[in-house]
Amino acid sequence: MSKYQRIKQEAFEANMQLPKLGLVLFTFGNVSSADRSLGVFAIKPSGVPYKDLSPEAMVIVDFEGHTIEGDLRPSSDTLTHAVLYKNWVNVNGIVHTHSTYATAWAQSQRDIPIYGTTHADHLTVDIPCASPMDDEMIQGDYEHQTGHQIINCLAARNLSYTDTEMILVGNHAPFTWGKTAEKAVYNSAVLESVAQMAYLTEQIRPDVQRLKSSLIKKHYERKHGPLSYYGQS
Amino acid sequence: MSKYQRIKQEAFEANMQLPKLGLVLFTFGNVSSADRSLGVFAIKPSGVPYKDLSPEAMVIVDFEGHTIEGDLRPSSDTLTHAVLYKNWVNVNGIVHTHSTYATAWAQSQRDIPIYGTTHADHLTVDIPCASPMDDEMIQGDYEHQTGHQIINCLAARNLSYTDTEMILVGNHAPFTWGKTAEKAVYNSAVLESVAQMAYLTEQIRPDVQRLKSSLIKKHYERKHGPLSYYGQS
Amino acid sequence: MSKYQRIKQEAFEANMQLPKLGLVLFTFGNVSSADRSLGVFAIKPSGVPYKDLSPEAMVIVDFEGHTIEGDLRPSSDTLTHAVLYKNWVNVNGIVHTHSTYATAWAQSQRDIPIYGTTHADHLTVDIPCASPMDDEMIQGDYEHQTGHQIINCLAARNLSYTDTEMILVGNHAPFTWGKTAEKAVYNSAVLESVAQMAYLTEQIRPDVQRLKSSLIKKHYERKHGPLSYYGQS
Amino acid sequence: MSKYQRIKQEAFEANMQLPKLGLVLFTFGNVSSADRSLGVFAIKPSGVPYKDLSPEAMVIVDFEGHTIEGDLRPSSDTLTHAVLYKNWVNVNGIVHTHSTYATAWAQSQRDIPIYGTTHADHLTVDIPCASPMDDEMIQGDYEHQTGHQIINCLAARNLSYTDTEMILVGNHAPFTWGKTAEKAVYNSAVLESVAQMAYLTEQIRPDVQRLKSSLIKKHYERKHGPLSYYGQS
Repeated sequence: MSKYQRIKQEAFEANMQLPKLGLVLFTFGNVSSADRSLGVFAIKPSGVPYKDLSPEAMVIVDFEGHTIEGDLRPSSDTLTHAVLYKNWVNVNGIVHTHSTYATAWAQSQRDIPIYGTTHADHLTVDIPCASPMDDEMIQGDYEHQTGHQIINCLAARNLSYTDTEMILVGNHAPFTWGKTAEKAVYNSAVLESVAQMAYLTEQIRPDVQRLKSSLIKKHYERKHGPLSYYGQS
Repeated sequence: MSKYQRIKQEAFEANMQLPKLGLVLFTFGNVSSADRSLGVFAIKPSGVPYKDLSPEAMVIVDFEGHTIEGDLRPSSDTLTHAVLYKNWVNVNGIVHTHSTYATAWAQSQRDIPIYGTTHADHLTVDIPCASPMDDEMIQGDYEHQTGHQIINCLAARNLSYTDTEMILVGNHAPFTWGKTAEKAVYNSAVLESVAQMAYLTEQIRPDVQRLKSSLIKKHYERKHGPLSYYGQS
Repeated sequence: MSKYQRIKQEAFEANMQLPKLGLVLFTFGNVSSADRSLGVFAIKPSGVPYKDLSPEAMVIVDFEGHTIEGDLRPSSDTLTHAVLYKNWVNVNGIVHTHSTYATAWAQSQRDIPIYGTTHADHLTVDIPCASPMDDEMIQGDYEHQTGHQIINCLAARNLSYTDTEMILVGNHAPFTWGKTAEKAVYNSAVLESVAQMAYLTEQIRPDVQRLKSSLIKKHYERKHGPLSYYGQS
Repeated sequence: MSKYQRIKQEAFEANMQLPKLGLVLFTFGNVSSADRSLGVFAIKPSGVPYKDLSPEAMVIVDFEGHTIEGDLRPSSDTLTHAVLYKNWVNVNGIVHTHSTYATAWAQSQRDIPIYGTTHADHLTVDIPCASPMDDEMIQGDYEHQTGHQIINCLAARNLSYTDTEMILVGNHAPFTWGKTAEKAVYNSAVLESVAQMAYLTEQIRPDVQRLKSSLIKKHYERKHGPLSYYGQS
């Protein structure tokens, strides 16, 4: 059995969640799962339908983006995953989708304002939308640059990748991450739900205001940090 | 067998209805079922996925919010349920969800206007949206205060909890209740449908007017009160 | 076997289509099927969940609205069905739902404008929305009056019930009909789809114009009348 | 076994994908599959429910629109397919649906602007909406003219049918095509998703701008042409 079996299995299971959660059409998404001790991640092969996936079909890639094991070509977004894993040492799972509502916000090049507690249960700030890249970066190593575009957007806003586990890439679509591939998939579904609610909220009340800070703090701390009291632990 | 078996079973079955009705994503919801003779209610454990629930996993809590039986931590919203049960003696089931359309109205801090007979079949007034709490209340015993926020909102509008079995908590999400947990779940699904229809109605006709009082009265009385003639009985 | 077995079976099967087609929540809908030779129709019992229905549960009612056979109380909308059957001799199936988009148009008290060929494949005019009744009529024999409200709306617009097999009752919800219960259900699904498309069309282009008459005529005649060439026959 | 067995099977399978992908209500759609060596295509019979279809039910038609084999009447849109096959020698599959969002754009008589990479992954231009025909053409050989309406629209905009595999017919609904019937169905689903995203994008940001050309070029070339690196090959 491959020493990469654990992450192949995790990447496979996490990828299979995307169609079940209604987050992808055809092959428009990918999940990876990293093994920090081995310095690699397992990622979906490019363009393979979900019904044809198996743990064995996952491709093993290192944090420079080199394929280490696997017969198939890895996802065309592999270099974006590699850059994020290389720079964010506490991330072990990354997801990219073109989920409908999150993608519509990305196409609008707008951050998703924090309008309610569903949002505040997961992060305390607007969900950032990174500006599209310069033309030189697009024509260069595009997927590699997408990783830096994401990192730079968080840095420019003084956001930590451990607190803010989701982003919109302007004109493109969302990326999410987390301590595990499963958590990154969870974040993709949360983002899609929050994106739909924020859209509807603005339609119902165009002059809607953001959530006040005391409520943001309360809800976030219910689920995160030393005083959290949500879930079992 | 536990003397709480009936309400554990009812709470379990009612909780399992939430994902089937499309009212929750992951664990974003909870249902409780009360036994008035024993002075307790059974509620979903916090953060446990629906697929892992069982009647035995339900937590038994008294109307002060103390856990009476169960190995798991109860829902983080337990104190809100406790306050409502303590104050509303005819309520035996309570539901909290973040269902999409109802939550969008809550985020908008708007009551849902009574635009049609689907609404009037269930209540005669706009579905109230309680204003967000003061900062001191948020920083205090938040879930306890949420219960009072709901009770005070109905009181301020002269609404009876037996006639109006649903509310939006501003910036947050809906709560519904009823004589049984099953009825409270029914009310959550009705609220979500009415919320979607009201949203669409305003999009189709921005200057739409509320239903006239004769039609509200007729539809409500078809289903409620001594002259009702809907259903079997 | 009851001499009403055929229409009981047809009414049962047609009712069971409503949840499959996504046209009803809980029990918010009903279908009836008429036998002209016996002067009766079979209709869903009031408030019974779809999962508990059977052909035997259908109630047999005459065109005056009197129950002829059956242990259960018929749908609360039974008198509306009776009035329509009594007046419209070529109708053998009637459906009432609160389907989301059609109901939103009804709540808006707007006709659904004919914006495309999906609409023109089924009728050549805007789908009419009947104005709400006078207060006296509401307080009187409401369901009976709803039947007349529908008949009068078509008459006032010079529409034939054989050409226009659907209507919105203002503030309330849609009714559809047809030569069979199955066709009436088909019309309910078509209406819901056309209602959603018309809503989206106005959102995408607020100054959209109606379909031109040559295209209406062409599409309607492809499917209806002596020169039709759609389907097998 | 019929010499047309391969295209009958392909047309059958492709037709069955339409309801699975949520692109059709009842029989409102059709797919055909061509065999260039035999000069014919297999197409869905008119008005037959998807559940009653089989490979044997497919009708074989030549590129003039004459039925060659089959007991049933072919789709009422058959002449449109025939004209496109006759003129576009590299097309072997054609799909027509009334999918909800694409049809709403067609009813609005608007091209779908290229707002994001989901669109640019598939084509580099706005998805064209052909203007409605003149009245004489409508009253003449309508389905034949629809084929020419599509061809003329692409020609007027200097678009190649091998690069732009989808179109909206104004006031009507979408047509898509491709090298295989399967690819044409894929294009119909992509179009519906892009149509929904573009609608939402304009709602979220009414002054949204099109994607810049460098990003269009990058995404299109990732998936198409000699430098593509998406998928396995």
